[in-house]
Amino acid sequence: MTLQELFDIELPIIQAPMAGVQDSPLAIAVSEAGGLGSLPCAMLGTDALLEALTTLQARTRKPINLNFFCHTPPQQQPEREAAWRKLLASYYEQYGIDSQALPAGPQRRPFSHEMADVLEAFQPPVISFHFGLPDKALLARVKSWGSKIIASATTVEEALWLEAAGIDAIIAQGLEAGGHRGHFLSDDTNLQMGTFALLPQIIKAVKLPVIAAGGIVDARGVTATMALGAAGVQAGTAYLLCPESTTSALHRAALKSNGACHTALTNVFSGRPARGIVNRAIRELGPMSHSAPAFPLASAAITPLRTAAEKQNSGDFSPLWCGQNASGCKEISAAELTLSLAAGL
Amino acid sequence: MTLQELFDIELPIIQAPMAGVQDSPLAIAVSEAGGLGSLPCAMLGTDALLEALTTLQARTRKPINLNFFCHTPPQQQPEREAAWRKLLASYYEQYGIDSQALPAGPQRRPFSHEMADVLEAFQPPVISFHFGLPDKALLARVKSWGSKIIASATTVEEALWLEAAGIDAIIAQGLEAGGHRGHFLSDDTNLQMGTFALLPQIIKAVKLPVIAAGGIVDARGVTATMALGAAGVQAGTAYLLCPESTTSALHRAALKSNGACHTALTNVFSGRPARGIVNRAIRELGPMSHSAPAFPLASAAITPLRTAAEKQNSGDFSPLWCGQNASGCKEISAAELTLSLAAGL
Repeated sequence: MTLQELFDIELPIIQAPMAGVQDSPLAIAVSEAGGLGSLPCAMLGTDALLEALTTLQARTRKPINLNFFCHTPPQQQPEREAAWRKLLASYYEQYGIDSQALPAGPQRRPFSHEMADVLEAFQPPVISFHFGLPDKALLARVKSWGSKIIASATTVEEALWLEAAGIDAIIAQGLEAGGHRGHFLSDDTNLQMGTFALLPQIIKAVKLPVIAAGGIVDARGVTATMALGAAGVQAGTAYLLCPESTTSALHRAALKSNGACHTALTNVFSGRPARGIVNRAIRELGPMSHSAPAFPLASAAITPLRTAAEKQNSGDFSPLWCGQNASGCKEISAAELTLSLAAGL
Repeated sequence: MTLQELFDIELPIIQAPMAGVQDSPLAIAVSEAGGLGSLPCAMLGTDALLEALTTLQARTRKPINLNFFCHTPPQQQPEREAAWRKLLASYYEQYGIDSQALPAGPQRRPFSHEMADVLEAFQPPVISFHFGLPDKALLARVKSWGSKIIASATTVEEALWLEAAGIDAIIAQGLEAGGHRGHFLSDDTNLQMGTFALLPQIIKAVKLPVIAAGGIVDARGVTATMALGAAGVQAGTAYLLCPESTTSALHRAALKSNGACHTALTNVFSGRPARGIVNRAIRELGPMSHSAPAFPLASAAITPLRTAAEKQNSGDFSPLWCGQNASGCKEISAAELTLSLAAGL
């Protein structure tokens, strides 16, 4: 089955869900252009989720992919978190932040029955999961509405695992991709492969349609992934400069700079490896820190630094998520970008 | 200018030079099939080089690419080398190796006027360099014979540097590639990009023809790189099971195993990051060890372990070089493989 049939869309171009740099306008623009827009939902509480879904329903009749995380929340790690804050002490001092009174960080909750309760009334056509899948009962529940399920694989083993779990399509997330790596069977980042190696090996291993992600930023990239046998593509970084994105001015400037050539997988912003443009936080604390508390606990301590630095117009502590090819970022509408990607089909 | 015109070949398919797993038969077979075979020369002394060139001249009239390294040899590091041997002490004990009487390791010499003296009589049509380029005078000398010069770039910056130095074509070495990374402007492996990100950005940045390398193992991969704008491809891993390769039985078995899915960049075998299948040495000493002496000094201490382990039919200490996609390795002749890759043109 083609992705067009599976999702009832015209173009097998999926806009990657990107928490922190987009809201419903980007998703709606992509879906209205014939692709599949995505809304990142992992940082939304149930009230905010309800509000977001109500907005989407009012503004488009096109399908939108709703994205959720499936990590296992860690136990609190008071000693490790204290050590992490201690490591950040000199920065707190520099920015005049009271390290004894840090606010709670941004919430990243795994998909739950409470979230499913909200979704149920909307019976969303497409749901995507990152960091694995929810448990069997919860997965069965969302499938019972007819929702199509997609999820990220970063290894052949993960792709086979996802196929066995009964989902509808697999996103092969190459190492070039920006933002959080979706791995869930092993933490060994050496297992993570570039798109050119990962995509054909997953396609060979599974029967499901495979969506290519990681480093695809223009029509040529789309043509190349289709030549490798992809059913479609998921692009994120390319959309970051679109007017419909909420990418900050600092983040936009970084994407347009030479610095965008230098990204790294880092865990300093959240506790899990994610690809972003190398800045002071990554350079001085990472890129991969053994001290960072488990996902998502690392973010609470670094977020006040981000806020304070950004007030001074500095991105030193901001997660400047970006894939390894920012050269495709264009200040054009999301619809135009979607169609320009689709020209490579 | 096309690679076919540049190198006087029929097919823009280059067999990657792979020291330790090939000799002239593989290079000759690929060139006779219409591609460009390569001979790794960095581990040859001048006598062996003369012998190899004489063999090539006698056996084929087709062009062969001669590959040399351009690293700056490090100062001896007696303390670091002693610490490295100490780290290996328990392994020496296990294999009954006298750590006080280790033989000198394999030599890896940078390209030199002495080597050029040998080349001069042969005026080789194509010379490739890894880890940068020789100095201006030496480069001018080999160019004066009409030799076409190619070299590896792992970043856009390196590609621009190579173009400015006046070479004829650039190999974009994606992170998926097996064997030694060719980086030479920065040691930061975070700068290294997957083929999907690196190739189009280098193509956009330079006017020279760009050869794609890293993860390309079959006709589909060739088609994909051509869609991204490559002038041709360089494939290495795919040739490792060909009968013309000298890949050891242990290495062949590893390539055919599931273990080939798990590669890592490691410096434990030579001191420089190179991609190989994860084995005991990589797992226990690396993958990247801060203790490993600078390239190529690390290899002297580990080579006796390799030799001893291989005698016991174990690849625990062997560099099992391999790219991130071993699925294209086939036990077919190098000619057949070359033509099957070319089917994707």
